[in-house]
Amino acid sequence: MQTETLEALLFLVPASALASLGFAAFLSFRILRLPQGTEEMRSIAAAIRQGAGAYLKRQYTTVSLFFVAMALVLSLLAAAGFLAPYVPVAFLTGGFFSGLAGFIGMRIATQANVRTAAAARESIDKSLRVAFDSGTVTGLCVVGLGLLFISLWYFFLNGNYRELDTSLRVPRITSIMLTFGMGASAMALFARVGGGIFTKAADVGADLVGKVEAGIPEDDPRNPAVIADNVGDNVGDVAGMGADLYESYVGSILSTMALASAAGLGLGGVGVPLLLAAFGLLASILGTFLVRTREGADQKALLRSLRRGVYASTFLTAVLGWFLVLLILGPDLLGVYASILSGLLAGILMGLSSEYYTSASYTPTRNLAASSQTGPATVVIRGLSLGMSSTVFPVVVVAGAIGASFFLAGGGANFNLGLYGVGLAAVGMLSTLAITLATDAYGPVADNAGGIAEMSGQPPEVRDRTDALDSLGNTTAATGKGFAIGSAALTALALIAAFQDQVQRLLLADGTRAAMDLSLLNPRVLMGLLLGATLPFLFAALTMNAVGKTAELIVAEVRRQFREIPGIMERTAAPDHAACVDICTRAAQREILAPAALAILAPILTGLVLGVEGVAGLLGGATATGFLLAVMMANAGGAWDNAKKHIEAGAYGGKGSSSHKAAVVGDTVGDPFKDTSGPSINILIKLLSMVAIVFAGVILRFSLF
Amino acid sequence: MQTETLEALLFLVPASALASLGFAAFLSFRILRLPQGTEEMRSIAAAIRQGAGAYLKRQYTTVSLFFVAMALVLSLLAAAGFLAPYVPVAFLTGGFFSGLAGFIGMRIATQANVRTAAAARESIDKSLRVAFDSGTVTGLCVVGLGLLFISLWYFFLNGNYRELDTSLRVPRITSIMLTFGMGASAMALFARVGGGIFTKAADVGADLVGKVEAGIPEDDPRNPAVIADNVGDNVGDVAGMGADLYESYVGSILSTMALASAAGLGLGGVGVPLLLAAFGLLASILGTFLVRTREGADQKALLRSLRRGVYASTFLTAVLGWFLVLLILGPDLLGVYASILSGLLAGILMGLSSEYYTSASYTPTRNLAASSQTGPATVVIRGLSLGMSSTVFPVVVVAGAIGASFFLAGGGANFNLGLYGVGLAAVGMLSTLAITLATDAYGPVADNAGGIAEMSGQPPEVRDRTDALDSLGNTTAATGKGFAIGSAALTALALIAAFQDQVQRLLLADGTRAAMDLSLLNPRVLMGLLLGATLPFLFAALTMNAVGKTAELIVAEVRRQFREIPGIMERTAAPDHAACVDICTRAAQREILAPAALAILAPILTGLVLGVEGVAGLLGGATATGFLLAVMMANAGGAWDNAKKHIEAGAYGGKGSSSHKAAVVGDTVGDPFKDTSGPSINILIKLLSMVAIVFAGVILRFSLF
Repeated sequence: MQTETLEALLFLVPASALASLGFAAFLSFRILRLPQGTEEMRSIAAAIRQGAGAYLKRQYTTVSLFFVAMALVLSLLAAAGFLAPYVPVAFLTGGFFSGLAGFIGMRIATQANVRTAAAARESIDKSLRVAFDSGTVTGLCVVGLGLLFISLWYFFLNGNYRELDTSLRVPRITSIMLTFGMGASAMALFARVGGGIFTKAADVGADLVGKVEAGIPEDDPRNPAVIADNVGDNVGDVAGMGADLYESYVGSILSTMALASAAGLGLGGVGVPLLLAAFGLLASILGTFLVRTREGADQKALLRSLRRGVYASTFLTAVLGWFLVLLILGPDLLGVYASILSGLLAGILMGLSSEYYTSASYTPTRNLAASSQTGPATVVIRGLSLGMSSTVFPVVVVAGAIGASFFLAGGGANFNLGLYGVGLAAVGMLSTLAITLATDAYGPVADNAGGIAEMSGQPPEVRDRTDALDSLGNTTAATGKGFAIGSAALTALALIAAFQDQVQRLLLADGTRAAMDLSLLNPRVLMGLLLGATLPFLFAALTMNAVGKTAELIVAEVRRQFREIPGIMERTAAPDHAACVDICTRAAQREILAPAALAILAPILTGLVLGVEGVAGLLGGATATGFLLAVMMANAGGAWDNAKKHIEAGAYGGKGSSSHKAAVVGDTVGDPFKDTSGPSINILIKLLSMVAIVFAGVILRFSLF
Repeated sequence: MQTETLEALLFLVPASALASLGFAAFLSFRILRLPQGTEEMRSIAAAIRQGAGAYLKRQYTTVSLFFVAMALVLSLLAAAGFLAPYVPVAFLTGGFFSGLAGFIGMRIATQANVRTAAAARESIDKSLRVAFDSGTVTGLCVVGLGLLFISLWYFFLNGNYRELDTSLRVPRITSIMLTFGMGASAMALFARVGGGIFTKAADVGADLVGKVEAGIPEDDPRNPAVIADNVGDNVGDVAGMGADLYESYVGSILSTMALASAAGLGLGGVGVPLLLAAFGLLASILGTFLVRTREGADQKALLRSLRRGVYASTFLTAVLGWFLVLLILGPDLLGVYASILSGLLAGILMGLSSEYYTSASYTPTRNLAASSQTGPATVVIRGLSLGMSSTVFPVVVVAGAIGASFFLAGGGANFNLGLYGVGLAAVGMLSTLAITLATDAYGPVADNAGGIAEMSGQPPEVRDRTDALDSLGNTTAATGKGFAIGSAALTALALIAAFQDQVQRLLLADGTRAAMDLSLLNPRVLMGLLLGATLPFLFAALTMNAVGKTAELIVAEVRRQFREIPGIMERTAAPDHAACVDICTRAAQREILAPAALAILAPILTGLVLGVEGVAGLLGGATATGFLLAVMMANAGGAWDNAKKHIEAGAYGGKGSSSHKAAVVGDTVGDPFKDTSGPSINILIKLLSMVAIVFAGVILRFSLF
């Protein structure tokens, strides 16, 4: 394809991003026009909205301080010539767009929850539509803003370097843009970890005192922590998840663009990931129209309707991808198309694997539920062992995707082309993110709707409908997590490859130093590998402890309110919900600092001691154990949750039996596993790579040994 | 040093091995001459001895079948030219010596337990001496047989290749001998995993029904599983531990000998590890004389007396090592001495780290005990997070040891010399194994003595003395585990380096193929790395499940006996202890097969698909996550155990409180962590390397891609 045609075609990218944002705005207004149910429902929803708003306000304050400080550091580095002058601004805009995506998603989710509950008074299909539309807004904003961010900067830099020939201009642009992902990653870490600590501390705290000590049911408005629990679903599972996938998305595209240059593919190589993302976005928008169901639909029918949307989008993207590669790269490089396919396929397999290990429809979770008969210790042992075994299949899938995308793209003959293939596999997996994220972000809305229905005393059939949607949300959340983890692993690898390429470029420019030796037996690499491998363990420990500590604060506060505010249990006095929200908000901001410092300082300090080779080892080690730990924690947590639900549905003595008590212990252990530590590790491994890329020049200059 | 002098000096190695075995025989006879206490004590001890004997007999039958089958496979490979003709025989003798070391250690432990109990009727010092002497026998046999095995083969091969010049002969010999470690590793896996499943299934099963359901105390003779529990201490913690360290010991020496040749150091390079091991052995024998205490000694005094022996041996070895390096390698290579020191130091630091994280004298375990106040879920979360955080310091220590031993040996200028340094660090760490293992293998003897004292109704002061020794045993066991894990990591790395060298040698001989590319970004390496990283997770899951399943069988059997044999609780009828021993024995043999198959097939299958580069990645990944998982599981398990003991000693409500119940859940989860899965992972990572080394030729010839 001619350069001019291609350059014109690239305008499709911001166009589709704007279309996505426009469609999101349309859906939002449609949601906002829907009825909000009774007065009581409205006031509960307002409390949740308020709490979520208060949390985000506080979080953005903390984050702003961090971003300003980091931008200053980056400006100094840019002034000293270690970074392109655009990096500090790109860092801020990346973080801003990521935060904005989470903000909009959460705003609409906290409006949609009550409307989903209100719609459930009429029919399950209407209710599904509202919740799913809200999830779709999140998905569209994340992807739309991500693509907008990338294309704005691309066109700006392209204009800026207009005087250079394409063959020089494209590598220059992609090498600069590679350093642009750190803002998104840092924002994602804050949103995910902070939200994760908030949501699980509130959940665990509310359960420990409410269910266990006071003997009141879940979502009972008398529990002072119940609003915090519902707020948590929004700040953790909507805003956190959105920011998480925003940075995966941006990271995968930026690294693939950089690898395209390294492979010498020029503008065409850059165009493929960008246009694939744009086509995937349009396909996702079309796919959302296929999600609908009829009244009386069972779990399977509901799931089928969501899957229909996802699979149709995937299929459409796969077809468009073929033309894309053929037209832009030509028939000789059609092998690259196989890379895209392997990414799409791996994404689906990862989701199915998570579902198999965490759904009570399959053996693993059923056996886990059975083990509750011999007490909590057996439940914990079996759950951990389930989580550990569940890492094998995803590893085989991701390793297979790496091998397939590398070698089918032609990596055997042209190493950099193979790495480009791996990057494209990640982009392929994430190309339909708008709709996969929609099916995921729909869950917390349905969950909240159930809470509102319960608290406002709706008739049982309303709660039954929201329960059906919520329970489906657990399955889609598991699928979504598998997808998030798989894409994180592939993206992290693409980023490591891009890091290596960036360093080689700097070394080449220096001219006085030897090329990197990334051999596994190079002691620097080996030491880095071991140190990197331990980072996810430490990170998981820090975040789990943060949840434990904050939950203990909530327990103390709830006990205090029960003691000091007479009449709560008799419903004559209202508990102080805001106090619990406030405790979680403050604690989340405080506890986030150590994990964030770890993620940012680890690669820099390692680099200063062990050099860039040590950093490469660090990234490899962190990706390997991070991937495993994330899968293990997500699946063990999901399985414990569903094993408990399985028992609550009547198995092994049902609610209140000793089996149930044992299963509740497993579920509580699983809470920080699946919603705090596990998903945050995804971000950790990418943020480490991003920091390494940005600080590569500094490390090269100042490393001690 | 002249070749003749050096060759003569090498005869010190078998001589010290024989001295060690002779001293072990002397100690054994001294133990056997001691009084065995009352008739009741004797009969209990006989039951334990019988059970242990029955287990070993059955295990050796299973293992023999496996060894014969493997020897046939190896013979075929040798006949086809893929292996030296000596390998099958060496495989059998390695396994035999390893089994023999475990067998002798266990035989003497099951004789010493009752004599320790009898001596405790007189004084704590006498009691300590008996238990420690028994541990010393295990230590001396493991090290003595290991050195004997290596030196016998060395002298045999040396004679066999007499016609070759030294410069050709030494590389030939070391390259063949490198393949000799697989027998020891395979035997160790069977002993460790089988023993681990046996001991923890019996322990968990006995506790679940005895303590929880029937409300009878630990070690109560009415519990049908109590003898199995005591048998388990011997087959798991003595025979299993012995075989484990035997293979670390042999593996570290063999790989360092091979690396010496690769570094072009010739006979001198081979002599240093061998003589260092011999000197360390002699120093350890001297050190054992320093272990003694006085009546009324508290925990700290007891620990000091054990430590005195270890530190004195370490110091002596360090001094002798200096002369050794100076005389044999000369002043130019004195940097290699720093490698030895870094290994010795790392061993001590690893032990101290384990102690810090698992002893109730320090904050982590105390905080863990405090968390029991909010229930079992908090205990589990905090324990897991303690275990995860506890990986950081050991990783830094091992990474530091790698860096120090590599660069100080001169690896910056001569890469292979650096790798030789890493190997020597492992040998250095293990050089004082005889005495460190003695302090470790003493624990189960004291534990058994306590059981015998309890079951035979000894006066309280006897039980108090054995309790003091037993409790100390928990600390030394933690130290020993840290040491075992640290040495496993260094040994595994030395083995990976030796594997790479072996493959390069084969590739060179072939001449038509490219050298290995072990870059982290080589997709074969990367895929192998990910697959390898998941192996310890899968292995841990398999072994944890095996314990869970077997414990459930024990629970069923104990319940059956309580139901069907009237009069057990009234002490008018004896329970059928042998039935529980039999169940554990059978189950252990059955459950061992899947983990063993995994360890042996994983590197071969990976190699056949991804080639030798994939195998190298596999070994690296397995070592990294295996190391972390082993540390995490050992420390979390130890901390849960001691947190429970801390509460039993009166904290947070003491025995029977809800805190205690929560702590018991943690302890039960920790049982398979610390005594089955955790320690077995050490062996897994080395067995994988050994299999890779033995099958390197086959993989090179038949790999698909």
